[in-house]
Parts: sequence; structure tokens; C-alpha cells
Amino acid sequence: MPPPPPAARAPGHLDAAAPGGGPEAQPLDVVGIGNALVDVVAVAGDDVLAAAGLVKGSMELVDLARAREIYAAMGPAVEVSGGSAANTMAGVAALGGRAGFVGKVADDDVGAVFTHDIRAIGVEFHPVVARPDGGNEELVGTGRSLVLVTGDAERTMATHLGTATTLSADELPVDFVARGRVVYLEGYLWDLPAAKKAMRRAIAECQRHDGAVALSLSDAFCVERHRRDFLELVRDDLDVLFGNEQEVRALFGARTLEAALRAAEETGLLVAVTRGALGCVVVTPRGPVAVPAAPVDHVVDVTGAGDLFAAGFLYGLTHGSGPEDCARLGALCASEVITHLGARPQADLRHLADEAGLLGQAP
Amino acid sequence: MPPPPPAARAPGHLDAAAPGGGPEAQPLDVVGIGNALVDVVAVAGDDVLAAAGLVKGSMELVDLARAREIYAAMGPAVEVSGGSAANTMAGVAALGGRAGFVGKVADDDVGAVFTHDIRAIGVEFHPVVARPDGGNEELVGTGRSLVLVTGDAERTMATHLGTATTLSADELPVDFVARGRVVYLEGYLWDLPAAKKAMRRAIAECQRHDGAVALSLSDAFCVERHRRDFLELVRDDLDVLFGNEQEVRALFGARTLEAALRAAEETGLLVAVTRGALGCVVVTPRGPVAVPAAPVDHVVDVTGAGDLFAAGFLYGLTHGSGPEDCARLGALCASEVITHLGARPQADLRHLADEAGLLGQAP
Repeated sequence: MPPPPPAARAPGHLDAAAPGGGPEAQPLDVVGIGNALVDVVAVAGDDVLAAAGLVKGSMELVDLARAREIYAAMGPAVEVSGGSAANTMAGVAALGGRAGFVGKVADDDVGAVFTHDIRAIGVEFHPVVARPDGGNEELVGTGRSLVLVTGDAERTMATHLGTATTLSADELPVDFVARGRVVYLEGYLWDLPAAKKAMRRAIAECQRHDGAVALSLSDAFCVERHRRDFLELVRDDLDVLFGNEQEVRALFGARTLEAALRAAEETGLLVAVTRGALGCVVVTPRGPVAVPAAPVDHVVDVTGAGDLFAAGFLYGLTHGSGPEDCARLGALCASEVITHLGARPQADLRHLADEAGLLGQAP
Repeated sequence: MPPPPPAARAPGHLDAAAPGGGPEAQPLDVVGIGNALVDVVAVAGDDVLAAAGLVKGSMELVDLARAREIYAAMGPAVEVSGGSAANTMAGVAALGGRAGFVGKVADDDVGAVFTHDIRAIGVEFHPVVARPDGGNEELVGTGRSLVLVTGDAERTMATHLGTATTLSADELPVDFVARGRVVYLEGYLWDLPAAKKAMRRAIAECQRHDGAVALSLSDAFCVERHRRDFLELVRDDLDVLFGNEQEVRALFGARTLEAALRAAEETGLLVAVTRGALGCVVVTPRGPVAVPAAPVDHVVDVTGAGDLFAAGFLYGLTHGSGPEDCARLGALCASEVITHLGARPQADLRHLADEAGLLGQAP
């Protein structure tokens, strides 16, 4: 299933700055930082969502007791590795890109599953491993996300972050982060006070090496919670911004898509606004360009659609494609992940992209 | 996904013998006893099988070190509850039957997943929970089966039984087993010296209550290992026997299918011989009857085909169907489980069976 590792590429502009000189120290196209999570996926009726008090399509953080309660109400489930930025890195690797990931896991079965799966698809994973301290049960296990998929293919998530909550700035592997030509951050991390500082450190490290910083807005409620932080990032730090229409409107306080696109254009960043079946709009300083969604016969589960869009986009960006082709590749990757349960690619994305003429060239 | 619990049925012939009188003590159509396992499923090339020294289509028991080695060589995986008899009970429950299951789990994440999933589909699960003794690492965790699915939809399994290995006769919940009108045993249990005694006890308990005893032969290599034991069971204890052509031929030392069917007929048991796409043959004292396979567009993963055949067959048997209709329902259930990864039903089996006119009547 995972494509073979990519052939050696011409050294990028970060080679000189890469720490050490061994094969481990090669530059990476993208380093993602996010919550290391395993998804527990079950098909559910709207009644289960209602009984659990969950808002369809959203992601809610839940404590261990509530996670157990919701799990007990769920039907038979499938466990599959997830985590927003981790899914994106899996997609970049499946396309043949060099992807790295930083996330915090515990030394438990769930952590082993996460570690196995992300490495098996070809991502260089730098785990931050929680020390067993026998302390607060809320924080000691690897995180998991309960994903309820309704008949309309929409996904609703209740996430117990577990040990991911405790990722701190001190634990950030800065040499590893510095190897990324792009550093990709998930907005969900702003829900964690400690991780916010770690993200600041990652951004500083990336900028020190002339890397690009990309952010995914993650979830409209997440944007509401951290609007001021995100607007500061947009103003001071970011190069690339990903979000769906709802999230981007929430960020800019825009009533219409058009107003949101104008605000996006004013930022001067590269902004990709996804719109589900309506495709996406890429905004550059030269204006917005609409790109259609890739056709899909039957949508099963939209989990990971945004994550895999970002994967295709970032692969394109680091392989010499223009913004429109980046968006096309993003749309292609998203179209694969919504045809099955789970947010990691199952088909050979590199083959699909090659067939579509979207692999681009090494930069 | 799981069908609603079945409407209350007229009490069966075991009511008087059921221990206690609460709702928990109602008779069950089938009680299955088997290894409680979670499957770790990955798509794999033939090269991965060859490198791991696995024989395609077989199930091999592996120790923890070898399980880790094979897992490391596997691609990204999906975790989904499995275990042969457990899958069968999941199928019986999905059809609306009253199913119970006995298996041994540890107090760990994998055990929690197994317990959740089997209960969520409607099976009354009686876990035997291993005590944490911090002892032999080989025995302390809930069992898991590494399932490698090749492009031809064949599955090859490497199973680390973990704590399932330690199920003993003393731990068998005899009152629970006695509630089964049929007790269904998986042949794999004969690989465990302690479980063999537990099975003897289960058979005696079942017979004491006039229940029927059914056995699945599980795997041709398993039959080779325990041929003498299985032939004794056939002679002295069984009412129903399940196996594929290869397994039944191995059991009776028959060179041809015809010879195996003759040997099966001489046993006087109800014997169901599955033959993959060729359908199955049901042997009764009145001779063999061939039943075709249910049509399938695209076979993805044959894991669980035999288990779900047994589910449909046992549901029919406990709901007044004749052997041929039992086999038809078995074939229908098998046809659903081979269209997706994983060995538990995902579609509404009761609805499918109802549409096919195969639900039968309460006995």
C-alpha cells in the first residue's frame, strides 16, 4: 500500500543548516507538529450524536469520563491512526514526499499503533514519549479520538487528548523541526497552553532557517477559541494558511465567502479555502482562483478530507507546482480519503497523482 | 450498524435449567467459546509474506518476539475485533439471534476494545479476565492476530494469543455455557493444553442440558495437529461440524472431496463443508446437498468468511430452518464479510437475510 520511498532529490536550500551530516539529517519537505491520536471510528445514527450531546461535524475535547461514556454508546468500532497533522504527513509521504512528524505519545498499545502506522507509510516520526509517572489518569495514555460517522458521511469527533496535552516547549526536538522546508502546525494545538509555547518555539526555529510556516485552522470552534492568536500568527508568522469556508469566515469575521476571500487576499499569504464538494479557492496576492473538487462516486466518510487536501497542496508546494496545481493535487488526495472509513490514505496516492499529471518536479 | 435487539421469543427448552431467574439467565441460541483477539489488518504484498516466512491462507501461532518482528514489516494497519468464534457470535447477534461468548482478555486497551465491540453488536459477553500478575510478558496482554491481506483477497494470519493461552477449566463460567442451546467451539482452542480441559468441561455441561455441540475445524494445519482429538469428538460428542474442504479432507484423511463427504455422512452428524466461491455442501444422514455461494461483486478480504458462514448456519439451525436454508443463510453472511477488510459484519445482516427470505421462524 505505501509507495516506495522517493528517489534522492537534489539538495534543498536547507542542507547547509541541517544538523549533523548522516542520512538522518537530510532535509524534509514538510515537518508536521500535532496531536498524536488513534481514531476509534464507528458508524452512528443521529440519535447517538443527540444522546451524547455532540454537534455534528465538529470536534469536541472531552475528559476521560466523557470519552468512556460516549464510547459505551457507540457501535462496533475500528481503530485506525489519525491526528490532523499526522494524517497530512501520511499523505505527503504517500505521494513520495519527505515528511516528518512530531507528536507526543505514551508507552502504551495505542502509542505503539500510532508509531507503527505513521512510520509504515514512510513518515519520519520523532515521538516525544511521555514518562510513566503513574500520576493523573487523564494525562498518562496516548490520545484517541472517537469518530462517529453518520449516514450522510459527516464525521463528528470527541477527542480525549491524553498525554498529547502535556507537550511542552522544552520537549520540542528543534533540530528535527529545523530540517523542515515547511513546518506545518495544526490549530488544535492552540487548545493546549503548553503546546502554544512549543509552537512559538517551532515557528522561531523554522524562521531562523528560512523555512515556511503553514497553519491549519482545524475547526470553526477552535478558531472561535483562538481567534486573536490566529490573527496574530497571520499578521506576523505564517506563509500558508489552510481552512474550510466556515473556519476562514470565523477567523476574519466575514459574513460571506467573498468577504473572507478579500480579507485573505489582504494578508498577503497563500491561503487555501476548502469548500467540500464545491472544491476550493486558492488566494494569492494576485487574487483568488477556484479549483473544482475531484469527482467521487460515493462519499463514505469525510474524516481527513481537509488533512489530505493539505497533504497534496504541501507536496505540490515543495515540488515546484504553482498554487493552482497544488490545489488540484490537494483535491485529488481529499477525494481518495473520503471514499473509505478512516483519515489515512489507502490507495497509492503517488500513482493516482502521477496518472493525473500532478506530481510536478523536484524544486 | 448493529440491528436492534430481537423481540422477546417464546422460552426455549432450557428455561427450567437456566440458573437464577432474572433477564440475564434467559436461554441463548448459541454460546461460543474461543480466543478473544483483536485483528491488526494490513494490505501486504506476497514479498512481505515470504520475508516473514508465512504460508499464505494459514494461521500460525507466534510468540511475542516474532509478532513484533512481523508487525514491524507490515504496512499501516487497522485494528478491528476478531477471533473466530467471536466473529461467529457477532454474526448471530447481527442476525437478531441471542448469542453469548466466553473468552479470556487482559485488563488492557486491547481487551477493552474487544469487550466494547462484541457487546456493541449485541453479544452477551462473559469475559474471563486475566489477573495482572506482572509475570510472563508472553501471557499478560490480550491476544491479537496480525492479518496480512494480499491482492488476491486471501488472508494470512500470525496470532499471538497472549492471555488467551491461559484459559483454564476452573475459569469456565459453566452456568453461562449451560444457557446455550448450542455450544460452539473453535478448533484453535485445542492448541492450548489448558483450554482443552475447559472445552471438555463445556461439552459435558452442554450435554447435561441436552444442548447441541458444534465445532469449527478452524485451519487445516490445526486439524493436522489435533486430528486424533477431533476424530474422538466427532465420534463421541459433536452434533454439528464446520470446516472447509481442505480441513474436512485432512480430518478424514480423504484424497478427494467425494471421499470426505462419504466419511462425513458416515459420522451421522450435520456437517457443513465450505468451498469458497464454489459454495458449500451440507451433509446429513440423508446425504449431501450442494448450495451455491451468494454472488459478490468484488472480494476484498476473505477473513471471517468461514466464521460468518457458521453464524448464518447456526442462526438458521436455532430458528427452525432446514439444513439447506441454514447453508443459504451462511452463504449470505459470508458474502457480506468478504466485501470489506475485517471479519465482523458491517452491513445490517438481519435486513439482508430478511430480504432473501432466510430469517426462518422462532423454533
